[in-house]
Amino acid sequence: MKAELITIGTELLLGEIVDTNAAFLARELANCGVNLYFKSTVGDNLERAQEVLKRAINNADLIIISGGLGPTEDDITREVVSLATERGLVEESSVLLNLENWYTTRYGDGNSMPIQNRKQALFPKGSNIVPNPVGTAPGFWLEVHGKIVVALPGVSKELQAMFNETIRPLISLNGSTRPLAIRNLNFVGVGESNLADLLSDIIDHQTNPTVALYSSTGKVRVRLGAQADSIQEGFRLIRPLEEEIIKRAINNFYGYDDQSLEEVVAAKLIKNRFTLALAESCTGGLIGHTLTNVPGSSLFFQRGYVVYSNLAKQEDLGVKKETLDDFGAVSSQVAMEMAEGVRKKTNTDFGLAVTGIAGPGGGSEDKPVGLVYISLAHAGDTIVQKYLWKGTREQVKQRSTLAALHLLWDTLKSHSKV
Amino acid sequence: MKAELITIGTELLLGEIVDTNAAFLARELANCGVNLYFKSTVGDNLERAQEVLKRAINNADLIIISGGLGPTEDDITREVVSLATERGLVEESSVLLNLENWYTTRYGDGNSMPIQNRKQALFPKGSNIVPNPVGTAPGFWLEVHGKIVVALPGVSKELQAMFNETIRPLISLNGSTRPLAIRNLNFVGVGESNLADLLSDIIDHQTNPTVALYSSTGKVRVRLGAQADSIQEGFRLIRPLEEEIIKRAINNFYGYDDQSLEEVVAAKLIKNRFTLALAESCTGGLIGHTLTNVPGSSLFFQRGYVVYSNLAKQEDLGVKKETLDDFGAVSSQVAMEMAEGVRKKTNTDFGLAVTGIAGPGGGSEDKPVGLVYISLAHAGDTIVQKYLWKGTREQVKQRSTLAALHLLWDTLKSHSKV
Repeated sequence: MKAELITIGTELLLGEIVDTNAAFLARELANCGVNLYFKSTVGDNLERAQEVLKRAINNADLIIISGGLGPTEDDITREVVSLATERGLVEESSVLLNLENWYTTRYGDGNSMPIQNRKQALFPKGSNIVPNPVGTAPGFWLEVHGKIVVALPGVSKELQAMFNETIRPLISLNGSTRPLAIRNLNFVGVGESNLADLLSDIIDHQTNPTVALYSSTGKVRVRLGAQADSIQEGFRLIRPLEEEIIKRAINNFYGYDDQSLEEVVAAKLIKNRFTLALAESCTGGLIGHTLTNVPGSSLFFQRGYVVYSNLAKQEDLGVKKETLDDFGAVSSQVAMEMAEGVRKKTNTDFGLAVTGIAGPGGGSEDKPVGLVYISLAHAGDTIVQKYLWKGTREQVKQRSTLAALHLLWDTLKSHSKV
Repeated sequence: MKAELITIGTELLLGEIVDTNAAFLARELANCGVNLYFKSTVGDNLERAQEVLKRAINNADLIIISGGLGPTEDDITREVVSLATERGLVEESSVLLNLENWYTTRYGDGNSMPIQNRKQALFPKGSNIVPNPVGTAPGFWLEVHGKIVVALPGVSKELQAMFNETIRPLISLNGSTRPLAIRNLNFVGVGESNLADLLSDIIDHQTNPTVALYSSTGKVRVRLGAQADSIQEGFRLIRPLEEEIIKRAINNFYGYDDQSLEEVVAAKLIKNRFTLALAESCTGGLIGHTLTNVPGSSLFFQRGYVVYSNLAKQEDLGVKKETLDDFGAVSSQVAMEMAEGVRKKTNTDFGLAVTGIAGPGGGSEDKPVGLVYISLAHAGDTIVQKYLWKGTREQVKQRSTLAALHLLWDTLKSHSKV
């Protein structure tokens, strides 16, 4: 199956937005075994967009359009598909009703839907509605001369949810190529090149499965892909390689595919009925935010303290004034007193603390920007780690959060019953 | 001048790389007054890439190709341009010498240049060399039937340096269009379509400046663009429109261009020497994280409490047990006691509190998922707001954070001296 991607939006041609939707769709299509051979971006111009779509329908089997489904005049995707496929637009009353209800629920009875939003209930004749589980406006797909044309919104979260729920199954139904099984292995606390060194013989001799490494701030992903007659057969090919790779970096491995470090940490805490309290200084709440992104986190997380000032460290966590005076707020001693203090005060199984200098200001020769101490207190032991990160303020916060969760994950593995 | 962008590289069609070069070039071309009307990505396929280039030469005045200039077999840009423009490839001896010298200097006399790198000294006949100030391989540009075709490497640093040094001056020399001044106005707490309604007469009658709306979670951006003889003249054309638009939605406007809401809030707090404390329930630390992304936030932010449990709300903030029993943790009463409690406890000017149900679990008929109360306590008054958000857990957290900062921003505007 040959696919083509069309993103519609003048803002993408002005460089104000990096087109992450294209990267997402490209990756997902590859995972489905669909061969994406062309992608293009066209502005909010009816004529030009029509021409591009007509050409795509001639060349490809599957055409995915993203963007241009909003309520404003710039949003031209409906008209473009209607004109290029010579099908009139019809109003879907069920969609219209949903849109109107949404406005009334959200803004109260007095506030009805703006008239221009009515446009979002229009679809080219013969369209199938693609439900939008996380937003108001649905997308659509239709068959044109045996080809499939799909239209999804430009908002990433909506596009991704709709692709996952509706378009992926649609592709499987129409799939003609040999499926590609993909398994991602996620690692933390190891650099991309160090992991590549560790796996160099495997990387050098890869055929099917293929092996590729991708890194993002503080994390590395190893992607194994195997083409086979069935997905099951593909995963059978992947399994021995997967086990070998995990074995070689077992202390850094934390999960598969879309599993996040916070998810595996949360699952482990919940399973063991452990509780956790946080004491954050330079991360400013990011650890709490990250952990509470996991549904059900209230089962183990009861409270956190963002203690930016020295007074807060003393009053809320019982850090001693002498410790602050003698060693400074960014020190292993203060990190440990924060971890022990928050654990004692909240009566939890684990107390996790971070103190450091996120920058760009506040550094000195002795204590440069990027210096961070992380401490974890639990029954019988308090661990402390020192890091010196490079990068921007946000990167220092992110790397510290990952390292803190990594420390918690490591400790949980050796101190858990289940 | 009409421009088209072609990026060459199979990796871009596999979604393994987000195409930041395209965003860079798109933005820079807009700044040069060049109208980018189409961009496309094609894999490492000689025939397909040729077809795309031929079409581009027919349609545009300036064609910029990025990628495909490396030494490996996948690197096909030279051949593509050579075939599409029917010009043979010739070896540039000066470039070859440079490449060889670079290898000897870097790896020592014993290590000569790999034979395949010789390819990087080949150029379509009649090409002008584009020097590469930060890497080994140069790019090239040539005139074809009065059109300009430019080829630059895919490595971002090299592409950007080469664009700045050679291509931008080249465009000015050939430029026939006028530069484009761009001003973005940022709004919060208003939907895209409501803002479009408010500005409908302006949007309907736009010519130069142009007006366009873009939305992301909880925020809307209005982009004004004016073409004129100079950038200064462009901004002069924009100014009256800019002022009119801000006037119509003054309560929702918070900043220009890349300014974030947290930045303007932080600047206002610092200027007025105000202090702030946070009491977060369903946002889990996201407000603290967002505010502490701003450098210097320790000047106004001293501490925050993430009070997930009822016990924490009582112990840390002094929320009354009866209030929790009578109205529940997600109620305007508890939100107000949280805001007043955190302000009193920390002795700050402002106490900002959020309590709600982020979902996906925890909702009921009375108190559905997405129900959020935000409260702000300051000298003499405590404000409380009720919201009912739609969306995922993370979206509820994000929208609540934006709404909380919006409330703070609004209050600061009317209670600040500077």
